[in-house]
Amino acid sequence: MTTSTTPRLVLDATAQDLLFRQARTADRFTDEPVPDETIEAVYDLVRYGPTAFNQQPLRIFLLRSPESRERLAVHLSRSNREKTLRAPLTSLLAVDNEFHRKLARLFPEFPGAADLYAENHALRERSASLNGALQAAYFIIGIRAAGLAAGPMSGFDEDGVNREFFPAGDLSALLVVNIGRPEQSGERPRRPRLAHSEVCRTL
Amino acid sequence: MTTSTTPRLVLDATAQDLLFRQARTADRFTDEPVPDETIEAVYDLVRYGPTAFNQQPLRIFLLRSPESRERLAVHLSRSNREKTLRAPLTSLLAVDNEFHRKLARLFPEFPGAADLYAENHALRERSASLNGALQAAYFIIGIRAAGLAAGPMSGFDEDGVNREFFPAGDLSALLVVNIGRPEQSGERPRRPRLAHSEVCRTL
Repeated sequence: MTTSTTPRLVLDATAQDLLFRQARTADRFTDEPVPDETIEAVYDLVRYGPTAFNQQPLRIFLLRSPESRERLAVHLSRSNREKTLRAPLTSLLAVDNEFHRKLARLFPEFPGAADLYAENHALRERSASLNGALQAAYFIIGIRAAGLAAGPMSGFDEDGVNREFFPAGDLSALLVVNIGRPEQSGERPRRPRLAHSEVCRTL
Repeated sequence: MTTSTTPRLVLDATAQDLLFRQARTADRFTDEPVPDETIEAVYDLVRYGPTAFNQQPLRIFLLRSPESRERLAVHLSRSNREKTLRAPLTSLLAVDNEFHRKLARLFPEFPGAADLYAENHALRERSASLNGALQAAYFIIGIRAAGLAAGPMSGFDEDGVNREFFPAGDLSALLVVNIGRPEQSGERPRRPRLAHSEVCRTL
């Protein structure tokens, strides 16, 4: 089913539907596994999304072992815990607060870029959060580009997850995203979106 | 020109190129105007991107008057100021820290959602920043879906911008994004991206 699309866009209607109009956040998935190669293909696409100073702070942890899934699950709300333990694949998205150590390679034309961040940990954390969140959104779009559904979740016990997975303090958890082929039955109606007039204003 | 694509993705190669592989951040644009209808079409697509509790905190300010552009420009670094004053359209992306007031409408099946945020301003700000950044990324993708280029910029004087544009304190500036048809000549080579093995790890 294709919904109405606007001629102002260049992206074709099928892609619009795949990535946005028909794509839905999934709570329940089929048993079909999500192989490493699929995630590699997703990353190979979305790594081109822009970040400030090309800093690319996002790190993706694929929780494939039951042990790693359980280590995460105890820090989720009860409803998210159940979804996560049943998903074919769960990814823990985090940001590298030490991203500046790679900037000489990632942004070579401005050798001073690393120095901007080196002595300001708070600035690094803010920048990693913002740019990591941009990359998390690209990753969600990429999951949809692979014909799969994402189930992103925030609101977990971030401190608990950070202590469990990143005890050295160099990484910070950002988002948990379940990944798989969505179970179509029982899909809830799409929730309302804000109108253009509520969001956009001309000054 | 189409680059090599992976058969693991469902999204066709043309769309992959349009949104990620060939799309580039633009510093310089042609004089071609970007009409309101284009931004409306972009928003109409990307508003379907997911946010926590469907909170949709992003607000988009289109700075069309020379006065509004100047009000922003003084808070940007010198190089970003020049780019911004020359762009066909500049958008100021902000987040509504009072998003919880709309949750009864946006997430009707959980009437208590607004209460989770009502008495915790710090939680609201954190949640608005994260989810607004996801939406900012969807917006950048949407600009590319319209065949245009985005020039996203962070690192400006956020406090200064907030005082100038949002004196009531209900909104926080997130990102500035210039929008237009890119000037192709003098495009710099794409900066390196991190390899899959540097970003993804299986646990």
